[in-house]
This record gives sequence, structure tokens and C-alpha cells, in this order.
Amino acid sequence: MSLAEKVFKGDIKAASRLMRDIDDEMESAIDELKELYARTGRANTIGITGPPGVGKSTLVDKMVEVLRGGMKTVGVILVDPTSPFSGGAILGDRIRMQRHSTDEGVFIRSLATRGHLGGVSRSTHDIIKVMDAMGKEVILVETVGVGQDEVDIVNAVDTSIVVLVPGLGDDIQSIKAGILEIGDIFVINKCDQEGADRLEQELKIMLQMGGKRPDGWTPPIYRTEAVKGKGIEELMAGIQSHHETMHQKGLHQRQKRDRARSEFLEILKSSVMKRLQQHLNQNGELDRIEEAMVKREKDPYTLAEEIIQRTLQKVVK
Amino acid sequence: MSLAEKVFKGDIKAASRLMRDIDDEMESAIDELKELYARTGRANTIGITGPPGVGKSTLVDKMVEVLRGGMKTVGVILVDPTSPFSGGAILGDRIRMQRHSTDEGVFIRSLATRGHLGGVSRSTHDIIKVMDAMGKEVILVETVGVGQDEVDIVNAVDTSIVVLVPGLGDDIQSIKAGILEIGDIFVINKCDQEGADRLEQELKIMLQMGGKRPDGWTPPIYRTEAVKGKGIEELMAGIQSHHETMHQKGLHQRQKRDRARSEFLEILKSSVMKRLQQHLNQNGELDRIEEAMVKREKDPYTLAEEIIQRTLQKVVK
Repeated sequence: MSLAEKVFKGDIKAASRLMRDIDDEMESAIDELKELYARTGRANTIGITGPPGVGKSTLVDKMVEVLRGGMKTVGVILVDPTSPFSGGAILGDRIRMQRHSTDEGVFIRSLATRGHLGGVSRSTHDIIKVMDAMGKEVILVETVGVGQDEVDIVNAVDTSIVVLVPGLGDDIQSIKAGILEIGDIFVINKCDQEGADRLEQELKIMLQMGGKRPDGWTPPIYRTEAVKGKGIEELMAGIQSHHETMHQKGLHQRQKRDRARSEFLEILKSSVMKRLQQHLNQNGELDRIEEAMVKREKDPYTLAEEIIQRTLQKVVK
Repeated sequence: MSLAEKVFKGDIKAASRLMRDIDDEMESAIDELKELYARTGRANTIGITGPPGVGKSTLVDKMVEVLRGGMKTVGVILVDPTSPFSGGAILGDRIRMQRHSTDEGVFIRSLATRGHLGGVSRSTHDIIKVMDAMGKEVILVETVGVGQDEVDIVNAVDTSIVVLVPGLGDDIQSIKAGILEIGDIFVINKCDQEGADRLEQELKIMLQMGGKRPDGWTPPIYRTEAVKGKGIEELMAGIQSHHETMHQKGLHQRQKRDRARSEFLEILKSSVMKRLQQHLNQNGELDRIEEAMVKREKDPYTLAEEIIQRTLQKVVK
């Protein structure tokens, strides 16, 4: 039986194995993903992002609790920014979500953000698919920070939540402005701290200044105290409301299409570059290119153009 | 006279214009960059990265002061994480570095982190080149956070500095672990705050645990109080020492080669994808692909494979 078939049956070991193969960029993983694909697209996916220190992990932990209380099966993906360097998640499942690890209805996976060709957004898409195929009804994806990686991940979820806390410095203010457009829902966590009112006011003003969103949705702001479990039920209701609105307006369909397109382009990019690199390595051309650049004999733009003219002949006029 | 020629002559307006064209991904910018390339590779480049709120901007500001005191011309690139969404730098040059803006020896540029094909690392490389060709002797690149973007940027500089502060939360601890391998030099800023000793101890232990670096360099840890200008001279001496060590050991040459290769591959990737996307859009194929995926008739891996077989015929066996 293929790994994919075992995953359909909810086999946890097979799912873990497949995720590891995806991480290791094994060729066989692609075949399994091909097989999986037809059985995906059913899970409700939720992204949780925000700067370090705002309590995202605690919030996710409490969200899992509420979802489990409602008998939903849950997948959790923790995208760990440490991983491009250390080669693996440091905190991840082990510390943060430990108490759910014995619950069979919860599958937790930390994700390495390594690899230049595909990148973390590629792996996240694939891991979501495995959990989706396993039958997990809700998948939570937690990411730190607001780089291109996060934007790409947000593009992969149904509802994205941006978490902030009162009283952070100037740098946070600038990040705040940046994440306005990716949040479907905003959460002010640690709302007992000084400055929560002001943060909410600022957020409201910034959201108004941003004008009407193309999808017509007005992002609500929720207040939580995740440590004490306060405000989590309300937040979950807000997520449900976003989900229903998107479906009612048929926007979910548009979202699905956009997502399919960008996912295809990501996969195409990673495969094309893999092939091209193999090709250029085989005949020692990459070494010659490197040499020509270091000596400033040729510039990389012209060199790339030459390779394209030769390899993409049927595309280039 | 081409923009590139004007840039060689140190024309500030021409440089600004070219940087804008690069940001706007104008075709003409590539031609200028081709012309520039032969005159680049002379500047000493320094990256400054770390989580939000550690005082990177203040540190960069003081570093500029010291460099200017030493009669060096300086370029500053502020990579602003807000930009993929807001379309421009929010704080950037205007607030942070204002006092240097009237100094002709300093060129400050905020950088948008938008665009999926090339990404921020691509633009940063190009902006560094423009400043390099202008004759800026030292180029400082400030980035926030530790995503793939930052890793790519770090790959573009001679010396990378990781800035931390005492007393940050758990999330920061996890980031700290992640940036160990990208830091040539560590800075504990706000070193007057409680916990500086402990942070230094932790850092030392983590650096030791990481084992010997392939280049044999042991990253030193400096303490600064950037707001008061304390420790900056020592830090600058440390950067100089890293620079000299790399040159003496011939490692700078290896660094240059690696950088040339990854830069070439980045440019190739962005050009190839641009061509492929145009090609697929022209004959409506992207729409058909989207459709097939949403209906789960075909999976994106197989679809990408089909496109590659057709377009990269000469590469694929």
C-alpha cells in the first residue's frame, strides 16, 4: 500500500513519514503528493501570524482546545524561523503543544524553513495537503514575522489571523502597518496590558485608511488573554463567520482558484530550476559562469539571457 | 549619457532614478545593471539583522557616524518588512536616519520587499550594486527578522552582524538559535539592561555547541548601548578584523564565488519564470491549469511536469 493510501486511512506513522520525505525533498514524496491531491481541499485552514513575543503559540494551543471541545479533528503546523540554520525545529511540538500530543485527534508538525528552491511556503502547502488528506477538519498554521514567506503562507489559508499585543516598540509599529492587508481577523492578545485601547484605536484607523477590501470583508478586531483562555470562543466564532461569509459570496471559489494558480507556479518554478541547475552542473557551465562573473568579464543578466535563449527555445520567440 | 555612466560619476539623482527603476522592475534597469556590473565588487558590505525592537536602526545610525568620522563614504539600505503590503517604506529614511540625509557622503535607500518572482533579496543585490558603482566604500544593509529573505540577504554581504537585546521572550530565544549560523559578529545592544550577562553566556554556549565553522571563524560578541554611542568603535574594529581575516585566508575569494553563483541562479530563476508565465498566459493555459486543479482533475506536480517536458525539451532527457 502506498503512503498516500495509508494517509487516507488516517495512519499517523505514514503521515509522519511522508512529511519527513517532503522535508527531505525526496523524489518519492512527489509521487505520493500526486496521489493525495484528488483527496484534498476539504479542510478549513487558518493562519496565525504576528511578530515574536505576542503569544501566538499560547493562542494556537487554546484554539486547539476549543476545537477539540467541539469534536473537530485538528492539524497544527508550526513554521519555525530557526530552521533554515539549525536544520530542524528547536522548540516546536516538543515544548509548546506538548499537552495535545497524546490526543489522537490532533496532529502537530513543526516545519523547517530551509531550502532555496521551493522554500517554506512550498513545504507548508504540501504539509497542509497531507493533513487535509488525513481527514483533519481544521488546520492551524502558525508563522512568525512578516516576510515574503509569511505572505506566501497566508495565501494558502482560508482565514488569516494577525496577532498583536499592546506596548511594543517602533519596529512593531512598522510591522503593524505591513500586516494590515494580510489579516482577515486581528487579535489583540495580552489585552489586559496597558495600551490595548490605544492599539485597537490605531488598528481601526489604519484599517479604515486602507479603504474597502476587494472582497468586501471588514476585518474585525478581537481581544484575547490567551494565557487565561479569555476571548478564544469569541475568536473562533469570528473565524466561523469569516468562513461563512466567504462561502456565501462565492469568494471562497475565487480564493481557491488564485491559490491553485500560485501553487502551480511555485511547483513549476522549483521543478524548472532543479532541472536547469542539474543541466548547468553536468557540463561544468555553472563553474564557468561563476568564474566569468567574479572576473567581471560578463554580467549575470547577460549570462542568464544566454541560458534562456538556449534552453527555453520553444518559449522564447 | 546612460544612467549607469552617470552613476559611475557619483550622480545622486541618476542613482536614485535607477534604484526606482529597479524597484519598478523596468526592463531598462536590466540594461543599466549590465553596464554597471563591471564596475562593482569593490565596496565592503555589512549586514545588520535581528528581531524587531533590538535597536538596529540606532546602531546603523551610529555606525554611519563612526564611518563618516573616518572619511568613508557610506551607503545604507533599509529593508522594510512592511513593504510587500503597503507598497513602500513607511519609516525608512525619513524618520530613522534623517540627520545623515544632508551629508553627501551618505546615500540612504529604503527598500520595498515586494514582488514574488525576484523577491527582496534580488532587489537588495541590485541596489548594493548601484551604490557600489557609485563609489560608496561601505554599504550597510539593515533587515528585520529571520526569514528566507534575510538568509538570502546575508549571503550578499561580506560581514553579517546579528543584533540581540537582553530580556526578550521565548519566541526570541527560538530566533536566537536560528540566527547563530548567519552571524559573523554578534551584538548585545541595550547592554545596560538586566540579563545582558546571561544573554552573553547563553550565546557563547550556543556558539560552542554549533561547533567549528567551515571558514574557521569564531564569531565574537560585542556589547553596545547604541543610543549613547557606547561600544560602536569596538564593533567597527571587530568588523574590520573579520574583513581582514577573510582576506588573509583567501576566504573572501570563495565567498565571492559562492555569491556570484547564487546571484546568477536567482536572476536565472526570475527571468525563466517571467518568460514561462508570459508563455502560459498567452495561450490561456494558466486558466486551464487552474481549472483542472480546482476540479481535482489533475494535480499540480503532473501539470508542472507536462509544461517542463514541453518547454525545456533540450534540457530534459
